[in-house]
Amino acid sequence: MKVAILGIDGYIGWALALRLLRNGHEVVGVDSLYTRKRVEEVHSGSITPILDINKRIDEASKFFGGKINYYQGDVNDPEFIYHVIGKELPDSIVHLAEQRSAPYSMIGLRQARETLIQNMGGTINLVYAMKDLVPKAHLLKLGTMGEYGTPNIDIPEGFFEIEYNGRKDTLPFPKFAGSWYHWSKVHDSNNLMFANRLWGLRITDVMQGVVYGTRTKEISDSGLYTRFDIDEVWGTALNRFCVQAVLGMPITAYGRGDQRRGFLSLEDSIACLMLGLEKPAGENEYRVYNQFDEHYSINEIAEFVKDGGEKILNKEIEISHVPNPRLEKEQHYYNPEHKKLRELGYKPARNLREDVNDIISDVQKFSENARKYRDRVAPKTIWRESAGFLN
Amino acid sequence: MKVAILGIDGYIGWALALRLLRNGHEVVGVDSLYTRKRVEEVHSGSITPILDINKRIDEASKFFGGKINYYQGDVNDPEFIYHVIGKELPDSIVHLAEQRSAPYSMIGLRQARETLIQNMGGTINLVYAMKDLVPKAHLLKLGTMGEYGTPNIDIPEGFFEIEYNGRKDTLPFPKFAGSWYHWSKVHDSNNLMFANRLWGLRITDVMQGVVYGTRTKEISDSGLYTRFDIDEVWGTALNRFCVQAVLGMPITAYGRGDQRRGFLSLEDSIACLMLGLEKPAGENEYRVYNQFDEHYSINEIAEFVKDGGEKILNKEIEISHVPNPRLEKEQHYYNPEHKKLRELGYKPARNLREDVNDIISDVQKFSENARKYRDRVAPKTIWRESAGFLN
Repeated sequence: MKVAILGIDGYIGWALALRLLRNGHEVVGVDSLYTRKRVEEVHSGSITPILDINKRIDEASKFFGGKINYYQGDVNDPEFIYHVIGKELPDSIVHLAEQRSAPYSMIGLRQARETLIQNMGGTINLVYAMKDLVPKAHLLKLGTMGEYGTPNIDIPEGFFEIEYNGRKDTLPFPKFAGSWYHWSKVHDSNNLMFANRLWGLRITDVMQGVVYGTRTKEISDSGLYTRFDIDEVWGTALNRFCVQAVLGMPITAYGRGDQRRGFLSLEDSIACLMLGLEKPAGENEYRVYNQFDEHYSINEIAEFVKDGGEKILNKEIEISHVPNPRLEKEQHYYNPEHKKLRELGYKPARNLREDVNDIISDVQKFSENARKYRDRVAPKTIWRESAGFLN
Repeated sequence: MKVAILGIDGYIGWALALRLLRNGHEVVGVDSLYTRKRVEEVHSGSITPILDINKRIDEASKFFGGKINYYQGDVNDPEFIYHVIGKELPDSIVHLAEQRSAPYSMIGLRQARETLIQNMGGTINLVYAMKDLVPKAHLLKLGTMGEYGTPNIDIPEGFFEIEYNGRKDTLPFPKFAGSWYHWSKVHDSNNLMFANRLWGLRITDVMQGVVYGTRTKEISDSGLYTRFDIDEVWGTALNRFCVQAVLGMPITAYGRGDQRRGFLSLEDSIACLMLGLEKPAGENEYRVYNQFDEHYSINEIAEFVKDGGEKILNKEIEISHVPNPRLEKEQHYYNPEHKKLRELGYKPARNLREDVNDIISDVQKFSENARKYRDRVAPKTIWRESAGFLN
């Protein structure tokens, strides 16, 4: 199978490329190096050492054989994406080439526009290029569980049967996202549903939970690391907590800490994406997965890091609560369904409670890098104070 | 009340400006003259004679007194819209400055991108400018009944109570639009809900039906005409049917013709918008109206035009069916609720069956203009054949 990974240089894109190579698939890589650039702009960086794009591609070939045809450019440029798709004619396309930080999208109007417009523009280009050049190919698109928000009812996988005033229909589940980034994913999902309706494109839209971890089967101590961000803009809560534990800072949970989210390990995320590629959506099918394993509150995550950290680091770790910079319910019902991937054969290999120890060990190993960015961990991006044009 | 009309040069924007002036309100006008330019590009034009923007503004002042402060520019330019809002500090803003043609958005990738990106970018700029400069102002934003699509259940006004797996919540009604244009309005509605949640902006999101008619109380034979488009890209079905009747062409209904839509007259649309402005959304309120009066099938509309036309024009009129260029159900359940405006005091003044006669008379009056564009009436924009980058 020939798979084009848009966003191959990112956290998940890179780990997926390694798995595909190892399993003998052809890999086409596309990236604009957007995330590297934007992370540098906030004076931060991956604490795992990542090689530059050409070197890491060579390194991957050395380890797993095969070759990655790499194209540097922006999916939001129609000419570029038509060129790549037309030249490579992939069987499957994994679209990860989007601005992927909620805090980044909330910094101000410029970042909100960039997130909404680039993410939407790239996805629109891609569905047109597919219908013109590879109408039978399968698109695996990364969305987020954050598209749903936290309604007071169960969350189905994409669609559900509604009864209203005595009549029934099966409709998309209403979404209510919590940042411009998350809304950009909602807009993408809507546009993908319509592209499927228009041209019968085969699409899997993945509502993914928060992914954690530094390792997969392919990523050992080999120079094949994927990026790992720990600042308030580009790192997730779990990453930040691990860095705080290692550097002897208090763990800072946002707000009351009872907000719950779905999680899965990087290893399991890659396994799910592989399953999605190997068992693609059928002809004319638009399908939605809720891709996560376990759900935890922020307080539970903080406790896991504290427990693991105190054992490994042999010191006391404090948990503190800081005013929540985000706009989110801090106590809510949360019960999203997630059966479809298991029905396809997915079995989780990892769990968060145990993996926390490995992450802390890795952060410890790269604590010199973590120390460089320690003043970038505390929240500075306040949702309600998103800057306007005048700022 | 000082009202800024974004899109003052358009079909509804102009008619609303006249009503506001006549009622003694201050009017600020903003337009990029986008619609004029795009209509010319497809070698078409308004068949009602419309003056250029500066002349029509002078004319309006002559008739109704008052003065319109006019700014020419693009709402999608943050600097421009911050300048206008900051200088004028309006009490209310009516946002009509969007690409408003479904067929235009389906011509090809370029037009799809333009529609999605411009409409979203303008609305995002506007909510940021409001929160920074006029946080207490009221935004009246034009959406469309087409955001909902045609579900097999009743359509509430924006939100409804869902019961799922034994639990209840009140959530936005799931939308399923039928063109990139209609989706751009869904994206706007989503972004507006979030802007309201973020900053408490007061917003009325109007899901408007198809508006018909050439006249309002203010638009008589005075040189104050608003535009009236009759080509396949910029004109509605009713407009096209009237022109076909007058020019002795068969009326061409798309497909089977049982597709139903909500309609209201230009006079009633303006009355509803005035009501929305005079009874604005409350503090922190995001409210949704379904703004239409009557719903009819395309076949019924065709019959009304045939009946009216045969009497007025004294000739036989043929109705034919052409392959549907759009992607829409041609037979479906349709029962959208529309109580909220009536509860606010709205009473419809017109009805379609009678107004058809006036429209036909006006088209007859300007039949020379209509004749110029007669080869632009038949459908050429085919939804599924939307052109890609290579075309």
